[in-house]
Amino acid sequence: MIDLFSDTQTKPTPGMREAMARAEVGDEQSGSDPTTNALCERVAEILGMEDGVFMPSGTMCNLTSILVQTRAGDEIICDDQSHMYNTEAAGAAAIGGVSVKPLPTRVGLYTLEQAEAAIRVPQRTAPRSALISIEQTTSFSGGTVWDLGVMRAIRDLAHSKGLKAHIDGARLLNAVVATGISAKDYAEGFDSAWIDLSKGLGCPVGAVLCGSREFVVEAWRWKYRLGGAMRQSGVLAAAGLYALDNHIDQLAEDNANAHRIHEAVRNAPGLVFDETAGQSNILCFSVAGLGISAAEFAEACLKDGVRIRALGRDQIRVTANLDVDRAGSERAAEVILAKATNFASRAETPDGSSARLRAASLAQ
Amino acid sequence: MIDLFSDTQTKPTPGMREAMARAEVGDEQSGSDPTTNALCERVAEILGMEDGVFMPSGTMCNLTSILVQTRAGDEIICDDQSHMYNTEAAGAAAIGGVSVKPLPTRVGLYTLEQAEAAIRVPQRTAPRSALISIEQTTSFSGGTVWDLGVMRAIRDLAHSKGLKAHIDGARLLNAVVATGISAKDYAEGFDSAWIDLSKGLGCPVGAVLCGSREFVVEAWRWKYRLGGAMRQSGVLAAAGLYALDNHIDQLAEDNANAHRIHEAVRNAPGLVFDETAGQSNILCFSVAGLGISAAEFAEACLKDGVRIRALGRDQIRVTANLDVDRAGSERAAEVILAKATNFASRAETPDGSSARLRAASLAQ
Amino acid sequence: MIDLFSDTQTKPTPGMREAMARAEVGDEQSGSDPTTNALCERVAEILGMEDGVFMPSGTMCNLTSILVQTRAGDEIICDDQSHMYNTEAAGAAAIGGVSVKPLPTRVGLYTLEQAEAAIRVPQRTAPRSALISIEQTTSFSGGTVWDLGVMRAIRDLAHSKGLKAHIDGARLLNAVVATGISAKDYAEGFDSAWIDLSKGLGCPVGAVLCGSREFVVEAWRWKYRLGGAMRQSGVLAAAGLYALDNHIDQLAEDNANAHRIHEAVRNAPGLVFDETAGQSNILCFSVAGLGISAAEFAEACLKDGVRIRALGRDQIRVTANLDVDRAGSERAAEVILAKATNFASRAETPDGSSARLRAASLAQ
Amino acid sequence: MIDLFSDTQTKPTPGMREAMARAEVGDEQSGSDPTTNALCERVAEILGMEDGVFMPSGTMCNLTSILVQTRAGDEIICDDQSHMYNTEAAGAAAIGGVSVKPLPTRVGLYTLEQAEAAIRVPQRTAPRSALISIEQTTSFSGGTVWDLGVMRAIRDLAHSKGLKAHIDGARLLNAVVATGISAKDYAEGFDSAWIDLSKGLGCPVGAVLCGSREFVVEAWRWKYRLGGAMRQSGVLAAAGLYALDNHIDQLAEDNANAHRIHEAVRNAPGLVFDETAGQSNILCFSVAGLGISAAEFAEACLKDGVRIRALGRDQIRVTANLDVDRAGSERAAEVILAKATNFASRAETPDGSSARLRAASLAQ
Repeated sequence: MIDLFSDTQTKPTPGMREAMARAEVGDEQSGSDPTTNALCERVAEILGMEDGVFMPSGTMCNLTSILVQTRAGDEIICDDQSHMYNTEAAGAAAIGGVSVKPLPTRVGLYTLEQAEAAIRVPQRTAPRSALISIEQTTSFSGGTVWDLGVMRAIRDLAHSKGLKAHIDGARLLNAVVATGISAKDYAEGFDSAWIDLSKGLGCPVGAVLCGSREFVVEAWRWKYRLGGAMRQSGVLAAAGLYALDNHIDQLAEDNANAHRIHEAVRNAPGLVFDETAGQSNILCFSVAGLGISAAEFAEACLKDGVRIRALGRDQIRVTANLDVDRAGSERAAEVILAKATNFASRAETPDGSSARLRAASLAQ
Repeated sequence: MIDLFSDTQTKPTPGMREAMARAEVGDEQSGSDPTTNALCERVAEILGMEDGVFMPSGTMCNLTSILVQTRAGDEIICDDQSHMYNTEAAGAAAIGGVSVKPLPTRVGLYTLEQAEAAIRVPQRTAPRSALISIEQTTSFSGGTVWDLGVMRAIRDLAHSKGLKAHIDGARLLNAVVATGISAKDYAEGFDSAWIDLSKGLGCPVGAVLCGSREFVVEAWRWKYRLGGAMRQSGVLAAAGLYALDNHIDQLAEDNANAHRIHEAVRNAPGLVFDETAGQSNILCFSVAGLGISAAEFAEACLKDGVRIRALGRDQIRVTANLDVDRAGSERAAEVILAKATNFASRAETPDGSSARLRAASLAQ
Repeated sequence: MIDLFSDTQTKPTPGMREAMARAEVGDEQSGSDPTTNALCERVAEILGMEDGVFMPSGTMCNLTSILVQTRAGDEIICDDQSHMYNTEAAGAAAIGGVSVKPLPTRVGLYTLEQAEAAIRVPQRTAPRSALISIEQTTSFSGGTVWDLGVMRAIRDLAHSKGLKAHIDGARLLNAVVATGISAKDYAEGFDSAWIDLSKGLGCPVGAVLCGSREFVVEAWRWKYRLGGAMRQSGVLAAAGLYALDNHIDQLAEDNANAHRIHEAVRNAPGLVFDETAGQSNILCFSVAGLGISAAEFAEACLKDGVRIRALGRDQIRVTANLDVDRAGSERAAEVILAKATNFASRAETPDGSSARLRAASLAQ
Repeated sequence: MIDLFSDTQTKPTPGMREAMARAEVGDEQSGSDPTTNALCERVAEILGMEDGVFMPSGTMCNLTSILVQTRAGDEIICDDQSHMYNTEAAGAAAIGGVSVKPLPTRVGLYTLEQAEAAIRVPQRTAPRSALISIEQTTSFSGGTVWDLGVMRAIRDLAHSKGLKAHIDGARLLNAVVATGISAKDYAEGFDSAWIDLSKGLGCPVGAVLCGSREFVVEAWRWKYRLGGAMRQSGVLAAAGLYALDNHIDQLAEDNANAHRIHEAVRNAPGLVFDETAGQSNILCFSVAGLGISAAEFAEACLKDGVRIRALGRDQIRVTANLDVDRAGSERAAEVILAKATNFASRAETPDGSSARLRAASLAQ
């Protein structure tokens, strides 16, 4: 099977396993796991931040950043399609007592003007705007890459209004390889940022959250309280170090494969792509024009050995990853194209209008 | 001064004060304050519900309804201009651990389709959609009245998906007198609803939250935990009973006064009204077409003895209430009209376009 | 009936009702209720603090003090019989995310040594000790009066370790009239303190929480969020001002009545009093020596027209209050004595030992 | 160095590392990590429960059990020396809004009578007693083993009053090897229980929480929300399976080593042991009789190459673990004995009484 469902399901390579097996370890809770320490320093350096903390998941990175930088009754600002708002089980509210102001977006990118309008005037009857988050790249909106200038303008706005600025960098490195802008440049001046090890980088478990030294002290307090403090985590951290040494090129390959699939299917009948599609390793499109659901489309592809993901009623998400090479990607594109063509031909309406026309009108 | 800032600032009338002074009282916490009991029964009857609980504020009614009917990690659905989302200091998140999904609206009315799309598919990664709220009438959107049929369709949708349905009825009685539809008809089948005593009804303190008998048992538990349990609250409840006996007609008068002001100023240069404006006792309009801020406009009116409220940068809210009679309302309309005309004449642009034209284009 | 169940159930006197009926009012939320403002200033002056906020209940005072002065994951220290720990529905944990370290006591008084041992060494695995509370007088332990020197030593210990110090002053004024030490002296140097209006002072509703100006700003934020913000609360505050002018002497009378009852029944067969009994307006004793439950004893007294409260299996609480005068108190003492004598005679055991002997052995 | 500081700091053995390196993996979040699944089934079988969930730490097991089985405003009952109350950063309150009723104990064992008295009478003013927890063996009280009969009586009491019953089984397997009673017998009828993999079993990371199938569904929801959901966790689970196959005998060896040390030092001058000391792999004793602090005693031992842990001012904790064999344990005992003897000789008081006598009096 060609599995493009997600980049979270990749398995450790033999080299990574070997690195894990010979990892030097200690107790991370007493600061004496040398491999975990080395990983945290390495990622902090990549992001240009003072310090870092190893976490069992990216979700704990987002949650902890919120818990450290807000208090109950505060409000955070993020895009309405973000992982933080939709796919973290309302942890910010449930655990931090924090409300969310989701900004309406098409592909996860909000504007400086939206951010400005969203920050509330301080008054005791209103939630207190406390933190703004940018997800680079957008997870559920096609891996779209945020513009550096916009990010910095939003960051400066936040600071001028007393808010903290956070980067959900689950796929920040995909943006880095796509644009050539360094992670350090993206994260500069932000109060917290993290990268995930278990997505494009192919590690089994973990993410690293960075910020100032004071931030990391408080992040550790919450990591412990949440139950995320581990013991000889060096066995996991070793995979992270291995990936940073050996898998960065793979991210470029993932981006290229997503681009290849995009090129091959962008004119398929009935499929609608956003103009921002294909910027990194994720490709989203709508099948509404085919008169079928995303679930039906995904199922049809699966029958031909290609696993892709249905998001909601109409959207499909294809995620390039290290388990699928160039040939696999080309084969996936063929299957998607064939399925679209097939469904489109069935979708011809009595009055003669084609699926492509319907899709075109949907796209407007 | 003619004070149209809010209907929350009305003072108890002599008759109301007298009723309070001779109220029969007991300890409400042991269920032995007869006047409070009588008020709760009365409001429950008005709303067609099994039982009610007296609260120190409407904010505690909304909060308690959420606390009883959700748990941490749940999500509530309401309009993006609602009091619950914007003006309750994020209590739902801070105290209940509950996230909010605010639906984008123009005047506080969302559609059945929006509600349907907002209810999340149950999965452990997502917040659990648990409660949907309707604010009848809309507080920050001009006192717009929800259509009964839409309310019922949303209520039924909620129930079919396992959500509870709640009415924020701070000004429900204004809708009742505006439409002739009873409060019981509006609240039928909803799981919780409340009315405020300290707004149009003119009481000094309090609101009554209603629902099933089981709901009220749990509401009392939270009322106590929040610190809202009082002792001889009959002194306050007596005002509520007095108002229900004597001030309902006043609500019709308030609605009529708001309508009068609307008729008098709706064509004023530079002012933009929504097509739904003037349905109950609140009137909102934009002064963006005048080239000034809402605060400046409000200040100008205040100089001529008319107090109105600036909401955000451009919006003005005028709220008819029992402290301002017909003559006062007519005077207020004159002042608003004069100020608009005056500002509009100053706002003539070099190229000859008038404020009215700018307003017209803004309205599109 | 002679009702000594609690001092919370007193009803407003005619003079108090008149004061309420002619109270000058405004909107407390905008700081324009003159009577509420006057009450807050008055109580702040009594306690020697900068500012105050009117609350619908003493429970909201305790809760708000905690919410302002701690954050989630903190721990508060109080006695194991305190109202805060036992009778506020776990609000500190439920709303503030705050844990409690209850110190084992006999009559609600803990020692400096206990307090010192209870403050945790700062480390990220432990709750953070953040606030220590003293309940003056003790509510469920017989109205015992804290020694000023001990209070101050605990306060200083707290400050030296970075904790805030709080006084639950529901019945602080009873201590004041019992000892002649001013409320200002008791509250000196504490970070927050409050007095209740609806207990010995006889008001229908309310309490006033005081602290620094910054504290009150934050307390107001939580008051609003909890739903405790009212409107024309001057109608309630007027009762408070009236009570402070007219009912302080009554507190001395309450204390004297409790003392009278104590003197009359302290040698009753089978009743066991703590050596601290009878210090203010509350009197607690055990009926374990009578071989019956507290509920049975209370019921027997009720049949003779005296209402007292059973606390747990063995304890009885008698609370003098303004609805019961000297004659009523003497009558109550007679009934309690008669009932004890009666039950004791029935409790003579086969081997000849008397209830008094059993009681004596229980007391050791 | 002979490290008896804790059993959490053991390092994976070569065999364990090999098992990890060749673990079959998948995405645990979609239920497709075969090794994690096998571990959960294995532990569920050991505990006689329906299902299990793999967690990054024991702290997350305790926290999740509370979060699933309580709601805000509830109260849990546990011993005052428990890990849950003292060393989980107040997570129950901070995250679950749950209060704790800690029962005073000497070595972490409370009685049925204490439990019964701690369960509150249901009323809206009180916290709701919701869950009772037993820590088998006691972590900070010398690894004392709970009696099976007492555990079952407490469990039955809990159920009869509507509470859930939980076992913190961080070192449950140490009790199993000490008593010969199976884990299944200990856990029978409890609603939730867990064992730790990173303590005596020597794994780098993880614990497994078990309960009914419904419990595990909800536990997974919280695991995800807390950020504990991982991806290819099979690399960690493989260590757990290896330990269950190969390290159970080691637990018996740990218990034996602790017993050996106890026998060797129990009569050392100035050391005071509880009569329950030496039941499993942890040994606690007081050095108060030596006239020095626990920190000083630990430091002295460290200079001779033996690392032990100071708990509070007077207590020492020695924890046998797989990194210290029989010879190492014997050496450690020698050092402890020598240090105690040495300090005791210095502590001879002017009036001739020996440290041993002082210790004897302290022990009473």
